[in-house]
Amino acid sequence: MSKPNVLVIGSGGVGAISALSLSHNGGSTVTLVVRSDYDLINEKGFSINSCTYGKLTNWKPHNLARSVSEAREKYGPFDYILLTTKNVPDGPTTCEEIVAPAVTEQNEVIILLQNGIDIEKPMIAKFPGHLVLSGVSHIGSTYYHGHVENKGIDAVFLGDFNPKPACQHRASSASAAAKIEEFISIYHNPGFNRIQVDANVQKTRWEKLMYNSVFNVMTALVDLDVNSMQINGANDDLIRPAMAEIMAIARSVGVECDQGIVEKFVHIGDGLFYSPSMCVDMRKKQLMELEVILGNPIRIAREHSVPTPILGVLYPLLKMVQFRIKQEKKMFVIDQRDFQGSSDDYPRIFEEKYRH
Amino acid sequence: MSKPNVLVIGSGGVGAISALSLSHNGGSTVTLVVRSDYDLINEKGFSINSCTYGKLTNWKPHNLARSVSEAREKYGPFDYILLTTKNVPDGPTTCEEIVAPAVTEQNEVIILLQNGIDIEKPMIAKFPGHLVLSGVSHIGSTYYHGHVENKGIDAVFLGDFNPKPACQHRASSASAAAKIEEFISIYHNPGFNRIQVDANVQKTRWEKLMYNSVFNVMTALVDLDVNSMQINGANDDLIRPAMAEIMAIARSVGVECDQGIVEKFVHIGDGLFYSPSMCVDMRKKQLMELEVILGNPIRIAREHSVPTPILGVLYPLLKMVQFRIKQEKKMFVIDQRDFQGSSDDYPRIFEEKYRH
Repeated sequence: MSKPNVLVIGSGGVGAISALSLSHNGGSTVTLVVRSDYDLINEKGFSINSCTYGKLTNWKPHNLARSVSEAREKYGPFDYILLTTKNVPDGPTTCEEIVAPAVTEQNEVIILLQNGIDIEKPMIAKFPGHLVLSGVSHIGSTYYHGHVENKGIDAVFLGDFNPKPACQHRASSASAAAKIEEFISIYHNPGFNRIQVDANVQKTRWEKLMYNSVFNVMTALVDLDVNSMQINGANDDLIRPAMAEIMAIARSVGVECDQGIVEKFVHIGDGLFYSPSMCVDMRKKQLMELEVILGNPIRIAREHSVPTPILGVLYPLLKMVQFRIKQEKKMFVIDQRDFQGSSDDYPRIFEEKYRH
Repeated sequence: MSKPNVLVIGSGGVGAISALSLSHNGGSTVTLVVRSDYDLINEKGFSINSCTYGKLTNWKPHNLARSVSEAREKYGPFDYILLTTKNVPDGPTTCEEIVAPAVTEQNEVIILLQNGIDIEKPMIAKFPGHLVLSGVSHIGSTYYHGHVENKGIDAVFLGDFNPKPACQHRASSASAAAKIEEFISIYHNPGFNRIQVDANVQKTRWEKLMYNSVFNVMTALVDLDVNSMQINGANDDLIRPAMAEIMAIARSVGVECDQGIVEKFVHIGDGLFYSPSMCVDMRKKQLMELEVILGNPIRIAREHSVPTPILGVLYPLLKMVQFRIKQEKKMFVIDQRDFQGSSDDYPRIFEEKYRH
């Protein structure tokens, strides 16, 4: 039997180390899609400084491709598609559109190694019949201009988005378990990374969301690192109550987060003066993962009548910041002449004239 | 009887036109304190483009001074002290400290031509026995590097902060009324400006606050003009409910704002793509009038148990933005080694080590 063929999409801090973990294991053929920095990586490879894999220079996986289409043409079809890009459904390209060129067979397994809630829904709707798996990464890794700084071990929790009770869908469930097991077997490098089957990966996902939807969102809004927010009393004013809101939303969909997680997160960055990725995105005028990290949880809360007094104010504010970033990126240019009547009509006018 | 002697403190858009209104009237001697741009104004005067006074070049009032102390020494004592500066009690200098060098007699009348709520309290506490009057300006005027652009007529509402019932304190009340009348007589230029006795100036002040505490605060937080916020649905998501909160806080101190004012303000800037002064301050990395515009109303709300679900989230967020601006202005430099233990202790550590 030939080795599984794996496509890794997204060559940032997470994607590059995922490709390294797969390559290091040796159990698969690895193709990495590198978009903006293709020429750089193709010529010089990655330079990597990893807390577990050590210092590597000129590192490349088996195959590089400029686009998902090119990857499919040259190196496909794939058994596994590992998606590690940012997830910005309100951006120019949705994740389904990114993945689509690689989905040609009926049996590609799509693994979303991404943040956020309800990210599987549009993927399953677009590719019915495909197995879509939930990966939650606890890696610490950043990419800049060919260099990967990997300070926290590559740790992946992998499971079903919606694990079926044993009595139902026994066949597909069994197949999901086999695929999870196979992927772990080609990804795991004992001592270098961690990857485990997570029977309750939704809980893991919601718990990670408790950090992202609070710390990422607030730091992006006020342009301060976490400790500077805490100097201003944010722990009690905003952080603890906002995390309690996420916990309540999770509970409304049957997920009970660990009680201790709030205090763990409140203190996880003590003394580090760390700026989360969404804050960094805002500073770089890059689109934020606002909808999957905050918008989708807020929509679940509304559906289940869960009060969100803090997150419900943060969300419209952050949407406006995203709007500003889109303007700065020239994704649209507002013509003021379109907005001269009642300001109550402006959202409708924008929707009609400025959405592609 | 000699003409009243008037000191105008603050030479921005409001202060420059106030000095012009007084000078044009001719009924007083006008001294203007010009701090940062003294050399420029002393040499070349103001260039003014006013919707009512027309185009003026090389304009100066009778006297200029570099500081309140110099004004007092050269041109004092004063009958009226008109304070037109920004009011930033959490900044390097409070308004009481600014005014203090000019208060040497017992009979100076202090007029606060400034935004915000409860601004008279520290002033009255610092200068007991002095008449402190409330001025609310509806002018449209901006100052930049010697030039004043005065697009909206200088309109002033003047009254007692706490008008006494007729039966009480008849003498001081009568004296306040006489001073208000006198100041109006030396300020009013029919056709060029408007100034009127306002028996209910607290209502006028709260109504102006409804704009400032909502539009100023939100635009400063998301760095967008008003119409761009409205394109994003802010009218219903945030603006109307936040203004209703201010209305409820005013009601808790016996001030009933006009119902129609919410819709007036929602539509006052339709089509103008206007950025309020606090947003401009934030962009220029200048301190914002956060405490008098939002902090004091929030404190009144807490005292009177008025719920402020939106403003109560905006306030801690905006405090963090103010903290960022203070850092950018080098008002303090955080030494990260001071903040290494539990983040719950950071506010206390900051209070102890970084407050002057």
